[in-house]
Amino acid sequence: MNFNEKAYELGSKRSVIREIFEYSKKRASEIGADKVYDFSLGNPSVEPPKEVTETLINLLNKENPTALHGYTSAQGDANCRDKIAKDLNKKYGASFSANNIYFTCGAAASLSITLKALVTSSEEECIAIAPFFTEYRVFASNAGAKLVVVNPTPKTFQVDLEDFKNKITKNTKAVIINSPNNPSGVVYTEETIKNIAKILNEKQEEYGKSIYLVTDEPYRELMYGEEKYPFITNYYDNSVVCYSFSKSLSLPGERIGYIAVNPKAEYANELYLAVCGAGRALGYVCAPSLFQRIVTENLDAKVNLEAYKTNRDLIYNGLTEIGYECVKPDGAFYLFVKALEDDAFKFFEKAKKHELLVVPCDDFGVKGYVRIAYCVSKERIINSLPEFKKLFDEYNK
Amino acid sequence: MNFNEKAYELGSKRSVIREIFEYSKKRASEIGADKVYDFSLGNPSVEPPKEVTETLINLLNKENPTALHGYTSAQGDANCRDKIAKDLNKKYGASFSANNIYFTCGAAASLSITLKALVTSSEEECIAIAPFFTEYRVFASNAGAKLVVVNPTPKTFQVDLEDFKNKITKNTKAVIINSPNNPSGVVYTEETIKNIAKILNEKQEEYGKSIYLVTDEPYRELMYGEEKYPFITNYYDNSVVCYSFSKSLSLPGERIGYIAVNPKAEYANELYLAVCGAGRALGYVCAPSLFQRIVTENLDAKVNLEAYKTNRDLIYNGLTEIGYECVKPDGAFYLFVKALEDDAFKFFEKAKKHELLVVPCDDFGVKGYVRIAYCVSKERIINSLPEFKKLFDEYNK
Repeated sequence: MNFNEKAYELGSKRSVIREIFEYSKKRASEIGADKVYDFSLGNPSVEPPKEVTETLINLLNKENPTALHGYTSAQGDANCRDKIAKDLNKKYGASFSANNIYFTCGAAASLSITLKALVTSSEEECIAIAPFFTEYRVFASNAGAKLVVVNPTPKTFQVDLEDFKNKITKNTKAVIINSPNNPSGVVYTEETIKNIAKILNEKQEEYGKSIYLVTDEPYRELMYGEEKYPFITNYYDNSVVCYSFSKSLSLPGERIGYIAVNPKAEYANELYLAVCGAGRALGYVCAPSLFQRIVTENLDAKVNLEAYKTNRDLIYNGLTEIGYECVKPDGAFYLFVKALEDDAFKFFEKAKKHELLVVPCDDFGVKGYVRIAYCVSKERIINSLPEFKKLFDEYNK
Repeated sequence: MNFNEKAYELGSKRSVIREIFEYSKKRASEIGADKVYDFSLGNPSVEPPKEVTETLINLLNKENPTALHGYTSAQGDANCRDKIAKDLNKKYGASFSANNIYFTCGAAASLSITLKALVTSSEEECIAIAPFFTEYRVFASNAGAKLVVVNPTPKTFQVDLEDFKNKITKNTKAVIINSPNNPSGVVYTEETIKNIAKILNEKQEEYGKSIYLVTDEPYRELMYGEEKYPFITNYYDNSVVCYSFSKSLSLPGERIGYIAVNPKAEYANELYLAVCGAGRALGYVCAPSLFQRIVTENLDAKVNLEAYKTNRDLIYNGLTEIGYECVKPDGAFYLFVKALEDDAFKFFEKAKKHELLVVPCDDFGVKGYVRIAYCVSKERIINSLPEFKKLFDEYNK
């Protein structure tokens, strides 16, 4: 075997989430799907908005198929990019033009391309704030950088600003933040964002170099409170937005999203071109053409957020009433729960005996916690609660 | 500017083809599109088969949209992979199973992922055979390898076997072949494939290591002769097929293709897992889910090959009658024409004065030739011929 071992390891070592998902399918075939309380996968459970299917059928019936399915420019169709820019400007008071927008095959592609565009040497570091989505490690490594992790802040799971400050060095190239957060469901407050920006500006000054803030925000539209989303370009200049329509339009399999380079960033045009070049190097010719059209004709369409909110309340209230310590999620569709013993894997194994499939979060940078993805049917949540109660009682005999 | 310079260069230095394409758009707005004889882009001009649109509308009307647009496994939906494997086995007598097939976002992704999966150090070399698609250089570089180019064989543009043999060293990791070829339109004969396999087997023996043959075959179904396509797994064990439906179903913008790892390759399962890992590292979560379904329900659908063949005959006969030296293309939709002076760029500039937009092929590894992409309307070809005549006469006063 004389090919890329790192790639082989990545391919053969499934993520914990995928392992659990495969177990769940096997278990469902043994005892019936309704008896397995699988909370492992962040796969949207609500339908795409009706308008999405309508627009699809409409375009397919009306438009020239050769044009509809043809290549777009590498960065995406100019008209579609213009619509994204205007929508962001309208919704968040940003100042994008079409030439700041680069369509991608979803958030993972957005992040992988952005880090590749930024990182210049293996000395460089990308910072992630625990808890963080496990694949950041993979994308940073592919770009050639080291991942540095900021300690979690128990209870609130906002940002440990002291530790954040200490982790920034002269080698820091980028900081990745993810709010609403996977796996905690926490939304970073405007104050948190302002503090992050302040620290980064000071550090840029101190080291005389640019530090980029990369925001991974596929859950931006999945928020349950009243607060407005603190959109990053309003707070920090050297910033790049990585977005996906996977969750906002329930289209995770279609791989459609974008990168938006803050026009106020230093060398913003050159950075945009580096993004184009990184995408080209990784083999991205253009984002799927039909879905570039679909998403930009449905920028105001909404999935049924009420369903997620109902689920959020059911699982959060249900588990806290039993006695579990949960972080109240203001966004996304994850509940972050303190395991009933220090070792989250042992807790996971005990939960499994009750057919409760939750994800131990060690790989997300936080020990002693599990993630519950509540993008499932209401019934699954309701039926699981007695099992969660039994599990709790086992620990509290 | 302290981000990735290589990415910046790749993003800012458009390919020659893109430059010409942008000029063409500008020129068309000045004098009218029908007056510009643009032969620069390999963008399919024939419609996708009717069945494609029908299957799309049918699935959208009938199936649960959450499932239809949901994540598939990273390597692609198991049922869809099974269909690909069976289709290849039926058509080419191969012996694939679903677990040899990895769905990708098109041929560029297939190649970028495969090279990333194979290459282990910067000492290693990938061989391309001139003329070759310019992006091979980009993908090899991203994987960390050097690209080594085998000299072209004027007139036939088959493979210079002597030079091929000499270019293989102990550092050779992969050889990329592309037949039907872009930019020459040449189809490698079965004899050529057998010779390549024989040489590689000898060199594997000599160096005691695996050398992988990677075939880039998006034009496999675009052949105009009677001969059967010599499918690589029947000739060489350590082989990987990189495929795309861009041309066979006229869906270039939808980014859908696959990698097929020869089950007879050494460590075939591990190599497949390395492909999965490389895809993960580059940010490919899964190939577009709706189009995984569409292509596998239309594996026998065909675009209007007759239209391309008519174009082929029109341009090939037209230009040779005038006196141009052309390579007769048996596949794809490109005609490779000897420039009327040594410097193809100068010839390109003179052709441009006649509104003839052809692509100088220096970047494809062959000097003194231009590529004519005849995936255009018949009318464009017919109307361009008098201009080609005038250009020829200028050189032969």
